Amino acid sequence: MAADGIASEQTAREEALTAQVVASFSGTEDARLRFVLERLVEHLHGFVRDVRLTEAEWNAAIAFLTRVGDITTPVRQEFVLLSDVLGISMQTVAVNNEAYRDATEATVFGPFFVGDAPRIENGGDIGGGAAGEPAWVEGTVRDVDGRPVQNARIEVWEADEEGMYDVQHDDGRVYGRAQLSSDADGGYRFWGLFPTPYPIPFDGPVGDLLRAAGRSPWRASHLHFMVSAEGYRTLVTHIFVRGDELLERDSVFGVKESLVHDWVHHPAGAPTPDGREVDGGWASTRFDIVLAPARVAGDGGAVA
Amino acid sequence: MAADGIASEQTAREEALTAQVVASFSGTEDARLRFVLERLVEHLHGFVRDVRLTEAEWNAAIAFLTRVGDITTPVRQEFVLLSDVLGISMQTVAVNNEAYRDATEATVFGPFFVGDAPRIENGGDIGGGAAGEPAWVEGTVRDVDGRPVQNARIEVWEADEEGMYDVQHDDGRVYGRAQLSSDADGGYRFWGLFPTPYPIPFDGPVGDLLRAAGRSPWRASHLHFMVSAEGYRTLVTHIFVRGDELLERDSVFGVKESLVHDWVHHPAGAPTPDGREVDGGWASTRFDIVLAPARVAGDGGAVA
Ligand SMILES: [Cu+2]
Ligand SMILES: [Fe+3]
Ligand SMILES: [Fe+3]
Repeated sequence: MAADGIASEQTAREEALTAQVVASFSGTEDARLRFVLERLVEHLHGFVRDVRLTEAEWNAAIAFLTRVGDITTPVRQEFVLLSDVLGISMQTVAVNNEAYRDATEATVFGPFFVGDAPRIENGGDIGGGAAGEPAWVEGTVRDVDGRPVQNARIEVWEADEEGMYDVQHDDGRVYGRAQLSSDADGGYRFWGLFPTPYPIPFDGPVGDLLRAAGRSPWRASHLHFMVSAEGYRTLVTHIFVRGDELLERDSVFGVKESLVHDWVHHPAGAPTPDGREVDGGWASTRFDIVLAPARVAGDGGAVA
Repeated sequence: MAADGIASEQTAREEALTAQVVASFSGTEDARLRFVLERLVEHLHGFVRDVRLTEAEWNAAIAFLTRVGDITTPVRQEFVLLSDVLGISMQTVAVNNEAYRDATEATVFGPFFVGDAPRIENGGDIGGGAAGEPAWVEGTVRDVDGRPVQNARIEVWEADEEGMYDVQHDDGRVYGRAQLSSDADGGYRFWGLFPTPYPIPFDGPVGDLLRAAGRSPWRASHLHFMVSAEGYRTLVTHIFVRGDELLERDSVFGVKESLVHDWVHHPAGAPTPDGREVDGGWASTRFDIVLAPARVAGDGGAVA
């Protein structure tokens, strides 16, 4: 390091530059955009200064982002993956779903949601013929005071036992997804599949980053939920499987302890809750959902 | 805002998430990469938390970066432009060229350098027939103790009076660039062109960002220098023109007061320093260069 006098001249130069860049946004008409850009500049400059980013590293960062851009297509969003593996997506989810009493925690939306999934009655099957262990899922939708929320719209989606979602095939098949409604007591129930793990795409620059960090691309096994009802904050979440060895290293940081559920495996021939005949064993779990009241602010979007 | 108890639960969740993501890089083999990624995560999470980034804003950011990727080609580097207009490039230059006594300040490298520019003798012409006001540039290369640095390699490049570099035409022409060496007294001199301003490309997402911020895409008029000599830190810099109205709003923050020079305009017929006959008026300036000693650390790269 340089002597003190020189170091303070250097610090002054770096601080002056950041201040100058922040000031350059003073003419931004949209006050919120101005604020966001000013803070972005401060944090990015802070990063460059903290790590004393070398010019070779800057070049490597530009090359990395260029590769992220190159591999991105309408069906492969590597910028989203990058946000995911850096926990930016999950931090955005956290900021937009503030803790509120015992409201169920949110997690990442993911890229595999489809808006017009088949509608089923309570007790129906979302599997659509997909391979996997049948799983009975039931629970209630309530508000933070314990009152049932009836007619809540419940959208659920999941991968098959190969870890593939229907939309990852390009033949238009539909499986592992449905929408249903809570009943007059707030209850809901359906047949799905016991969740299986799958990796995020790791054949691109984000995969290289994970490898360099000794990190796994795998997501812990999960079943997606989106629950919406008039007057409540829309809940986008997953439930996970207690005992899944991937819980501790979910590649996108989507796991919250409160979302890890006990699943029971029943042997072949065990009677099912609705009397349905099942070939072989089946699983079951319970997921009681608590909705926060709708916020005044909030945009109703969802982070992949 | 939520009540205190809830706010602290929320803060705990956000901090725990950042800590978890930082910890996920603990297996990174390269210790420097690990450090850089950990600090990147902290600053980016700090940004999301500070601005309470909405999900709509996160979506807009992904769409923006996707557009940056889409427009980027081997000859159009929009990620570099983005780094430039956010002052990241210039902050990286600052960090890698620490203030050292009265060593000449560095600035951005820019995209228009070519490695094998024509070699000229002192007093030669770098113009290559390009249109513009002839300008005599002279000075010395010295170390911080005032000793001449002889045989320093001086590479200079600049745009023509239209604000275009030779490489921006695709017909292979070469103008406005040369390399020469300092003489035994550390002196150098050449005929170039009086600098003209030019905009960075503004027909892409970075241009949209500048427009939203009410910022100009123009760069202040400048003449590029790269000066290298054994045992010294390579200096990548520009000289600017005192009185240029763009000095205060250079789009990439490349202007340093110490690099703003007085240029004299001489009328047609005024005798030139080397007796050369010039059609019409000509300009002149002086740029005395001070090289810092080579650092132990440093990669010799250059930031665009
Ligand atoms: Cu920061
Ligand atoms: Fe998923
Ligand atoms: Fe330039």
